[in-house]
Amino acid sequence: MPETLISVDLSKPATENEYLHNRWHPDIPIATWVEPGADFIVETVDWTGGAIANNDSADDIRDVDLSTVHYLSGPIGVKGAAPGDLLVVDILDAGTLKGHEWGFNGFFSKKNGGGFLTDHFPLAQKSIWHYEGMFTRSRHVPGVGFAGLIHPGLIGTLPSQKLLDTWNSREQALIDTNPTRVPPLANPPAPKTAHLGKLSKGDAWDKVASEGARTVPPREHGGNCDIKDLSRGSKIYFPVYVDGAGLSMGDMHFSQGDGEITFCGAIEMFGAWLHIKVDLIKNGMAMYGIKNPIFKPSPITPNYKDYLIFEGISVDESGTQHYLDANVAYRQACLNAIEYMKKFGYSGAQAHSILGVAPVQGHLSGVVDIPNSCATLWLPTEIFDFDIKPSAAGPTKFIDGSIDMPISPDL
Amino acid sequence: MPETLISVDLSKPATENEYLHNRWHPDIPIATWVEPGADFIVETVDWTGGAIANNDSADDIRDVDLSTVHYLSGPIGVKGAAPGDLLVVDILDAGTLKGHEWGFNGFFSKKNGGGFLTDHFPLAQKSIWHYEGMFTRSRHVPGVGFAGLIHPGLIGTLPSQKLLDTWNSREQALIDTNPTRVPPLANPPAPKTAHLGKLSKGDAWDKVASEGARTVPPREHGGNCDIKDLSRGSKIYFPVYVDGAGLSMGDMHFSQGDGEITFCGAIEMFGAWLHIKVDLIKNGMAMYGIKNPIFKPSPITPNYKDYLIFEGISVDESGTQHYLDANVAYRQACLNAIEYMKKFGYSGAQAHSILGVAPVQGHLSGVVDIPNSCATLWLPTEIFDFDIKPSAAGPTKFIDGSIDMPISPDL
Amino acid sequence: MPETLISVDLSKPATENEYLHNRWHPDIPIATWVEPGADFIVETVDWTGGAIANNDSADDIRDVDLSTVHYLSGPIGVKGAAPGDLLVVDILDAGTLKGHEWGFNGFFSKKNGGGFLTDHFPLAQKSIWHYEGMFTRSRHVPGVGFAGLIHPGLIGTLPSQKLLDTWNSREQALIDTNPTRVPPLANPPAPKTAHLGKLSKGDAWDKVASEGARTVPPREHGGNCDIKDLSRGSKIYFPVYVDGAGLSMGDMHFSQGDGEITFCGAIEMFGAWLHIKVDLIKNGMAMYGIKNPIFKPSPITPNYKDYLIFEGISVDESGTQHYLDANVAYRQACLNAIEYMKKFGYSGAQAHSILGVAPVQGHLSGVVDIPNSCATLWLPTEIFDFDIKPSAAGPTKFIDGSIDMPISPDL
Amino acid sequence: MPETLISVDLSKPATENEYLHNRWHPDIPIATWVEPGADFIVETVDWTGGAIANNDSADDIRDVDLSTVHYLSGPIGVKGAAPGDLLVVDILDAGTLKGHEWGFNGFFSKKNGGGFLTDHFPLAQKSIWHYEGMFTRSRHVPGVGFAGLIHPGLIGTLPSQKLLDTWNSREQALIDTNPTRVPPLANPPAPKTAHLGKLSKGDAWDKVASEGARTVPPREHGGNCDIKDLSRGSKIYFPVYVDGAGLSMGDMHFSQGDGEITFCGAIEMFGAWLHIKVDLIKNGMAMYGIKNPIFKPSPITPNYKDYLIFEGISVDESGTQHYLDANVAYRQACLNAIEYMKKFGYSGAQAHSILGVAPVQGHLSGVVDIPNSCATLWLPTEIFDFDIKPSAAGPTKFIDGSIDMPISPDL
Repeated sequence: MPETLISVDLSKPATENEYLHNRWHPDIPIATWVEPGADFIVETVDWTGGAIANNDSADDIRDVDLSTVHYLSGPIGVKGAAPGDLLVVDILDAGTLKGHEWGFNGFFSKKNGGGFLTDHFPLAQKSIWHYEGMFTRSRHVPGVGFAGLIHPGLIGTLPSQKLLDTWNSREQALIDTNPTRVPPLANPPAPKTAHLGKLSKGDAWDKVASEGARTVPPREHGGNCDIKDLSRGSKIYFPVYVDGAGLSMGDMHFSQGDGEITFCGAIEMFGAWLHIKVDLIKNGMAMYGIKNPIFKPSPITPNYKDYLIFEGISVDESGTQHYLDANVAYRQACLNAIEYMKKFGYSGAQAHSILGVAPVQGHLSGVVDIPNSCATLWLPTEIFDFDIKPSAAGPTKFIDGSIDMPISPDL
Repeated sequence: MPETLISVDLSKPATENEYLHNRWHPDIPIATWVEPGADFIVETVDWTGGAIANNDSADDIRDVDLSTVHYLSGPIGVKGAAPGDLLVVDILDAGTLKGHEWGFNGFFSKKNGGGFLTDHFPLAQKSIWHYEGMFTRSRHVPGVGFAGLIHPGLIGTLPSQKLLDTWNSREQALIDTNPTRVPPLANPPAPKTAHLGKLSKGDAWDKVASEGARTVPPREHGGNCDIKDLSRGSKIYFPVYVDGAGLSMGDMHFSQGDGEITFCGAIEMFGAWLHIKVDLIKNGMAMYGIKNPIFKPSPITPNYKDYLIFEGISVDESGTQHYLDANVAYRQACLNAIEYMKKFGYSGAQAHSILGVAPVQGHLSGVVDIPNSCATLWLPTEIFDFDIKPSAAGPTKFIDGSIDMPISPDL
Repeated sequence: MPETLISVDLSKPATENEYLHNRWHPDIPIATWVEPGADFIVETVDWTGGAIANNDSADDIRDVDLSTVHYLSGPIGVKGAAPGDLLVVDILDAGTLKGHEWGFNGFFSKKNGGGFLTDHFPLAQKSIWHYEGMFTRSRHVPGVGFAGLIHPGLIGTLPSQKLLDTWNSREQALIDTNPTRVPPLANPPAPKTAHLGKLSKGDAWDKVASEGARTVPPREHGGNCDIKDLSRGSKIYFPVYVDGAGLSMGDMHFSQGDGEITFCGAIEMFGAWLHIKVDLIKNGMAMYGIKNPIFKPSPITPNYKDYLIFEGISVDESGTQHYLDANVAYRQACLNAIEYMKKFGYSGAQAHSILGVAPVQGHLSGVVDIPNSCATLWLPTEIFDFDIKPSAAGPTKFIDGSIDMPISPDL
Repeated sequence: MPETLISVDLSKPATENEYLHNRWHPDIPIATWVEPGADFIVETVDWTGGAIANNDSADDIRDVDLSTVHYLSGPIGVKGAAPGDLLVVDILDAGTLKGHEWGFNGFFSKKNGGGFLTDHFPLAQKSIWHYEGMFTRSRHVPGVGFAGLIHPGLIGTLPSQKLLDTWNSREQALIDTNPTRVPPLANPPAPKTAHLGKLSKGDAWDKVASEGARTVPPREHGGNCDIKDLSRGSKIYFPVYVDGAGLSMGDMHFSQGDGEITFCGAIEMFGAWLHIKVDLIKNGMAMYGIKNPIFKPSPITPNYKDYLIFEGISVDESGTQHYLDANVAYRQACLNAIEYMKKFGYSGAQAHSILGVAPVQGHLSGVVDIPNSCATLWLPTEIFDFDIKPSAAGPTKFIDGSIDMPISPDL
């Protein structure tokens, strides 16, 4: 039986747990050390540390304090790891903490977090997804169910002080271009809500809290990549920047669509575990020219093969032409898919939620044909309980509108 | 035997062929009419109409006149098609015109066309790819071979006058923000090199030539989407804007990676044919809420399953932070993959070319984690003649550098 | 959290557990009842009820009492189920009982059980397979590892008295053709080692024990089908023969090749659990013309795609021609694969074991071309740590022979 | 453009073509020689050499002279090939001869050929399948269409005299056990209808005709394996028994189910071509322990993933128990599938035909659980125009019975 290296107590506040932390900094103490070749279990809390409940109100989504996220389990030290190495992580398995077979998906209020389609869905909404073994369904989104593809939304190594300084300076430079924007362009360090694992209060704590990088963006060390394919069975090669590597992880998703367009988020697992194995490729960064993590996908992934594919181009909702902007193109593809699903009876919010949580693919199909980028959104048709394909007879409303997702107006 | 509705003579200039056209306009005469339910063959020339030769010089790439592209076969009229309908196109099969079993891939000079990585590869280069049945290899890029996934880079319906006017005005507005940029932000109508099928010279010709939209960008009617998955066996639903729909196609690719990052282009087939079937869903646009084409993928696609996946984030080559810019992120993922392949002996140009032509996937993996977009580039490992996966022993140079792609300095 | 309907105590003898039984008979008491639509957990012991240990001797395989197998969990009654219905079983998930992350594979002695290749491997041998999350490896078979495809080797409904009588009479008729054969042609009821769940000793017990069908063969109700594709995520439709259906299951496999050619068996899980959901299609047997179970495969299965495929024809090892005998053909394909693997350093026993436990496919490729049946054995190449494909250079011995499987001579 | 090494004239009798032959013998003259590494086109006639017509009568199936089959293109000599080598054949592509976009499937009369289900379908029947590009449909079997997986049913190398003698003696020994059986147990040489390529009449011709092995069964050299997965894109390694190897091929199938249960046959292509490449592994037979061909599947195969799987056990239609007989088990699985399809409106013959021609899989799922073998028949649900899956509502008759397959009573 593999050892549980880090366990979590879901009945206690995340902030009282010294194996959790919510910032990136080289001086966050290693929680525990392992040998290369070791395999072990790591338990995780949801990314908000328990702020979102399994109920029928979106108030908690609306009111969440985003400066507190993400609560990560770690950092785990790997003996012998040195800057320049590659840390090889096998995700041997992943699952749910017993008794907590649910997760949440939601849209943030535009005033507190926003998201990819926040101009179209500016208010907080929530859907709860229950697990039926390896499958999932939601009481707020009828007519759809699918196999999960469990993965850590966030996994990465500790940055060096130099890399951290680079992050902070380049992100601050972006913030400075529009410091009052809502939602913000980026998040600077936020000392007040820093949670720094074993680090005791004092000067060291103050330094780390004031410099510690926020966990929202993916960066060179991995971090919050939200790549649905970093799933159980995959193998990841992380750059190492500090002695011991310092691997942390969290933000476990039961399933997610490419892009995590709902931001809050995928199906966010209330409690989860990862079974991983760690190893080293000495000097691997230079040998292979690695700047960002690379990975190999799992041999086990859902075999959904019948897709309906929506195109989007970089002309925005107002008709304005953008230059090769893949974000605009993917947004249009998403909006096109939502309009289509509404014809079968879904509310816009439900359709949006499906794009956030189902194993939807988003492809950068064309990126050079000036001035239009072309993105495609791949919607698996097999996840629906009814036939969602087009026909000469036109769509049938299989969803009667009697069920919708909770919504919470801004206060 | 299915009828060949449109045939091409590869020994004659494209401009002398009245079944070809290189602009989009509702007044381009229908080349030929078919009934709904008909299936037939359409032959196509390469997108440049024969400007690029099967040789070992990139001069023709450097010197190409991009105002002449793309030469399309059509427009084909479908009886009974009316604005608001969906035109259903089954791509029943596709292949090579006998005796022309080759295609080209290249990078444009930054001064004449550019491309996704033009700052890194500013000079014209070319590789020739030979077909070995359903597989392909290049004499300029050793050690790699793969099954083709033949598809029309460009296929679409004729726009209405109103839609055309929208295109021209929104694109001109973009051009006006930086009219002297090289490469340009977009391409306005170019009457001089317009080729308008059966249309005779005269006032009508002048109007169409001066208004006719260029074929480079994908738009609401489909067009130059360069989606590798619109391949043989797929089924596409196009919006109809004019009576008869007016379906045209060309720019056939033997294989392409997501994004067609090399711009010039995929493996561009010198001569090709499509076997298609057309049908109608009356009033389908409103019934299904369709703005852009949608499609279903083929049941037959290459089963490459073992990938090496490269991450990229929206921090550019200079270290500057961009806000959720998927283009920057995908560019970084591509550059990361190129650096990796160079460790096995490829030149940067060869590695770049592989990303342009092989069945590479590009995913919008994360689009909300401010300020970093996360894109992933999926490189199939099975296409290489050697083992390209990382190991503790480090990379072996399987490619000895004795072969490279022709390059042509700017004049 | 789904309820655990049946739990097992692996520290106690299987015979002391009233939720287990090892015979099929309509009068075995229902262990527990559920409503249609219910989902729940069922725990299972290994098929021998704990007779095989995690050690390095094959003595326990050699000495096993096969009249005691298989120990099944159940029967579970589904309220409202009546003869003629279809019982729909969703295998929502499956896994290992914590602390027991191992299973065994072996060959029986020809004198006690035999197997598909017993003439070639007449002595008892054993290999132990450890789970590394969703993957498995063996300390007795180096150089190979793969993702598991967990499934119940045995799952079925209770027979009616009439169906049971049919089984007993047709199997006895076969036995009567050669009653002293070793191994036997079939197994008649064996009252002495019958374990009948809750049934108390007495006349009823005696009747059931003397009539109860042995669990080894698959039959009309499902039973010991050993179909590797009845895996987690699949959906099965069982015929119902008695009120309440009476669903029992066990013989859980972590992974198996088509045919379960090693007989003892797949990777036999020492302790396992199934999460299933049950539902009914009333009168489904007649409506759909169902005689044997039908099923739909899981959307999640290993994506091994690169196979080396071995052909076999129905000419046996002595050169004798058989008439369209698929068993002989498949045996030849298996022997051909074993010979091939030996060239890379495996012992015959190790190669044989790999065919028994890895996700190998066995296809009835040709069944009509008199006099030769053609069977194919599909060996996934990706499960090996080295390259097992043929090349002009010939095979390299990656396996040095220092490790082999325990063998136990007959006493 | 690859050279057409062997072309056929479909307007002439097969027997007048010296590049065709219908027997296996080392003394059949090599038709033409190639170098190792060469790739080229080989055209083929249908296996009967044109005896079956595209019409609505099964008389030609009933009356066919089976002593004339199969007409093969070849033998092709590969320079330098010697006994003991492996001949590596890449099937680079395959397709239809223009103007002949159809094939036939049928059942032989039990009195003339028979087949796997001949006791259930004892009379000659026929269905004609038309190609729609890479897809196929039949005017005799409505409601079903699918992508083809073109492959040579028959491809192999010339036997040595010694191997030929072995074939003839072992098959004659089988025939001798029941020489008057209808259909026969095997087919001995039939000099009268031998067609021996370039060989001139005379003593040599008489020897070859009287010894030449019939082409129906698969044997050690490959031959009539009827493996649907030897398809375009696959790579085959053949044993070499004579100098030059002598590769011949024919019996091209547009699509086939595992087993080719209809015997006559798959979708038998009236005229077809193969684009192949040949190479050698010197001494490969001993190096790799090869007795029968091995092969690697194509990277391009139909992605049908949603199956309905039917089980069969080795209890025959009369209720008699057979000992581990996979043929009986697969026959039951096929009959179960036919009964199921009839509930949706198909005639038994139509359902049978679908199992013969669609990309159906047949697995040897369990071969050791005495006394019952368990075979599974995998029916892809996506090939039907309607939903063929079970539901609580029961089946709907989508096929109205107005169309059936021609049948021809025995004379």
